[in-house]
Amino acid sequence: MKRLSKILLCVVLVGGIAGIAYAQFSKPADAIKYRKAAMFLIGQHFGPMGAIVKGKQAYDQKEFLRHALLVQSLSTMTWDAFLVPGSDTGDTRLKPSALSNQAGFMKAAQDFEDQAKKLVEAAQGGELQAIRGRFGSTAQTCGGCHKPFRS
Amino acid sequence: MKRLSKILLCVVLVGGIAGIAYAQFSKPADAIKYRKAAMFLIGQHFGPMGAIVKGKQAYDQKEFLRHALLVQSLSTMTWDAFLVPGSDTGDTRLKPSALSNQAGFMKAAQDFEDQAKKLVEAAQGGELQAIRGRFGSTAQTCGGCHKPFRS
Repeated sequence: MKRLSKILLCVVLVGGIAGIAYAQFSKPADAIKYRKAAMFLIGQHFGPMGAIVKGKQAYDQKEFLRHALLVQSLSTMTWDAFLVPGSDTGDTRLKPSALSNQAGFMKAAQDFEDQAKKLVEAAQGGELQAIRGRFGSTAQTCGGCHKPFRS
Repeated sequence: MKRLSKILLCVVLVGGIAGIAYAQFSKPADAIKYRKAAMFLIGQHFGPMGAIVKGKQAYDQKEFLRHALLVQSLSTMTWDAFLVPGSDTGDTRLKPSALSNQAGFMKAAQDFEDQAKKLVEAAQGGELQAIRGRFGSTAQTCGGCHKPFRS
């Protein structure tokens, strides 16, 4: 009981999201909030990698790998959040095309996930030239989703 | 050049964060936005694990592991975001104690990181009873940071 209470306490402390969690994205606004947070964080960790790749920031393998792992992990986010009916309006830049072409959207998301994984492998290898190539391929998959599905 | 253009385009597309990324958290509000996004996502993926552990949701190993991996990865976030001077005011619940006791804060963050890693190991093992124990230990580290450092 003590453990269960602590678990419950933590779930509540973490953000009062217990209710949402069970029926994730019951409202379009919940889905929008989730994906905006994930995309924002991807950007926050993609940016520093871009700076390194372009020589604007010193290369530190451990730090680069940390960014790459975070991006890779976030690439496994709940992509269903983008397919919630009605979530193409409101505080969002999602185009209706994501909802009407769900297979295309998920394919683009999968491409990103695949490339982010390869970027991690390159980051683990540590060779900057190889990393640069993989970073470029990953960056292309960002556009591969943003162009058709984001206004 | 073509590749570099694409990289730059993606960095910009990702959220116009190129500037922030080079000098991460130059403003307290940037740090607050970053950590709120990370904490929100941790909650979004911690919640479903809690529901499974408490038997409110069916156990699916692959899905549980996905949540655990996301939480573990987010536990490696840039914790410095919590230590930016002035970021204990504004749209935040961070207590000034985090800034005055940075070593204590970072120790609490490290505890969470360590437990989140062990939770992933348990999730990889797949045995629900072991997962339950590790989930409880991880949940305790949430409180171990929230209680002293969050109002």
